Amino acid sequence: MRTVEWNEKIGAVRMIDQRLLPGEFRTVEYDDYHQVANAIRDMVVRGAPAIGAAAAFGLALAAKQDRSVRLGELRAYVLEAARLLQAARPTAVNLAWALERMLKVAASFQGGAADLRQAMLVEAQRIADEDVEINLRMARHGAALIQDGDTIIHHCNTGALATVDWGTALGVIHMAFEQGKRIHVLVDETRPRLQGARLTAWELQQYGIPYEIISDNAAGFFLSTGKVQRVFFGGDRMAANGDVANKIGTYMLALAAFDNGIPAYSVVPTSTIDLSLSHGGLIPIEERSQDEVLNIQAGGQPVHPQGAKARNPAFDVTPHRLLTAIVTENGVVYPPYEENLARVVKKGGS
Amino acid sequence: MRTVEWNEKIGAVRMIDQRLLPGEFRTVEYDDYHQVANAIRDMVVRGAPAIGAAAAFGLALAAKQDRSVRLGELRAYVLEAARLLQAARPTAVNLAWALERMLKVAASFQGGAADLRQAMLVEAQRIADEDVEINLRMARHGAALIQDGDTIIHHCNTGALATVDWGTALGVIHMAFEQGKRIHVLVDETRPRLQGARLTAWELQQYGIPYEIISDNAAGFFLSTGKVQRVFFGGDRMAANGDVANKIGTYMLALAAFDNGIPAYSVVPTSTIDLSLSHGGLIPIEERSQDEVLNIQAGGQPVHPQGAKARNPAFDVTPHRLLTAIVTENGVVYPPYEENLARVVKKGGS
Repeated sequence: MRTVEWNEKIGAVRMIDQRLLPGEFRTVEYDDYHQVANAIRDMVVRGAPAIGAAAAFGLALAAKQDRSVRLGELRAYVLEAARLLQAARPTAVNLAWALERMLKVAASFQGGAADLRQAMLVEAQRIADEDVEINLRMARHGAALIQDGDTIIHHCNTGALATVDWGTALGVIHMAFEQGKRIHVLVDETRPRLQGARLTAWELQQYGIPYEIISDNAAGFFLSTGKVQRVFFGGDRMAANGDVANKIGTYMLALAAFDNGIPAYSVVPTSTIDLSLSHGGLIPIEERSQDEVLNIQAGGQPVHPQGAKARNPAFDVTPHRLLTAIVTENGVVYPPYEENLARVVKKGGS
Repeated sequence: MRTVEWNEKIGAVRMIDQRLLPGEFRTVEYDDYHQVANAIRDMVVRGAPAIGAAAAFGLALAAKQDRSVRLGELRAYVLEAARLLQAARPTAVNLAWALERMLKVAASFQGGAADLRQAMLVEAQRIADEDVEINLRMARHGAALIQDGDTIIHHCNTGALATVDWGTALGVIHMAFEQGKRIHVLVDETRPRLQGARLTAWELQQYGIPYEIISDNAAGFFLSTGKVQRVFFGGDRMAANGDVANKIGTYMLALAAFDNGIPAYSVVPTSTIDLSLSHGGLIPIEERSQDEVLNIQAGGQPVHPQGAKARNPAFDVTPHRLLTAIVTENGVVYPPYEENLARVVKKGGS
């Protein structure tokens, strides 16, 4: 099944509740778009492309919920719902991108309110289907960069669970494995939410790909030993110059790869590339609750003194100078990024 | 009380059991040197200088345990005990350094076996007392580098708990605070054993120094925002050229500081400097049990799939090119390190 999909029978969005993995595989269904917004904020669903699809279905759901007969009233309702969905996660650009596509349908629609409801659902479905197809194209482009015998460091979760299906950076790794390349993955556990240890390890286990979990801060050691050939991660928002906001820790990982001459790749659909931002310093960085840092135990015991406070930025910006290449559905992009990214984004739009 | 000390009344080594902090403050007493070796391996006591003092007391204890009347037999017993203590942690040079000092006393001693037992205890006590004095000198040299209003990132635990008393890098921070400088510390939680979240946070709370815990992988974000002025860490073994083996993650932290032009300092007693090693690549790196990585829970739930494997290197090597200066008890050392480190080490020996 897909990470996010529309359940036609009951008219609801169905998602895998990723907060329960790897302990339990459970799906949840939402028939109210407010629930979808909460699910995005609480990270029932996470990963930029999956969030985009979830928001699109959420907006189709909002249109379905509204009882307006007049097109103008339905449009106003949908616009309001889009604002709420947008506010759920500020950094991921796919969220804004998907909502914009949905709103464009609403704005340009000619016909009755009921027909618009149907058109919005069709558009959300198209966004989801396109995501799967785009991921497969990225995976094929990226897999060509992986050699038989490679050991690869991967950050966060960028697999099927981060997208509608298949994945971005982990999709590339999965594809290389499907092509018969013998690979080994060192999985950054990805503090504080441990998406690597929880989700990437779980996915790799499903695929039968050999892996070991490492502390994020051990990546530098492994990179310096000469036993790692490649580093792969995704991206939540990329500026026009290739600077990429991604899960906290990506910057330090990319730095360590660069310092050791190991290639590092960001795998992003062109929907993640925000040409309106000239550089990464303009990307807003979400700071999440300190509880995400503090809520771990070791051997059942708390690991910080009572009353301790924490900071929890969810993303950092990796400067484009640290990226060997950027993998998109329209091909692998090399520097100079400003010029070459603009070209692949246009290619997608043409 | 000190982190490691001799309990004269019962003839035993007393230590704070650091595995129980911050939940519980408890001391343990060992009257068998095998227990001391186990305590070092199991990290009841940790931190290079504290390990050195613990090993010294452990060897004095071994001498006390042996019933030999002849000096030669006692010497042979002590040598065997030193081998066992040495094997407990391979990376920390203070362990070897302290044992060597103790063995020198044994080798050069003129007199009866009972007198050697006493002489070895005196030497262990001297090592412990000197550690406190050396730490105070390092703290004063290092505190001069900290400005009023600084925000400082600190890795692992290098405080009173890592030494006999006072600390190395955290001793410097503590001293600056005692001098009236207003400082704020961002505490790397320091996966996998979380010595930062557990011990450094606990110490800072005792001293009343404001702090916040961060994921290790968030240091790069904070360094890139321009809101951090300095980075401090200790060192477990430093080569002649200034390359320093320290807690896993130090290399990536130093890289991120360097990339943002933020000064990074390693604070080490000269006993940590191993002039026999020309560079850091020669330092053996201990790999510890995967359980240290895997044994965490979030909200009481496991955070990795059943059967997951992990890698757990305990240290990495930070190249000297990333260090702004090295703080020792004999002064602050700037590049060229090879020349200037040799000078401060000799100064200590003169």
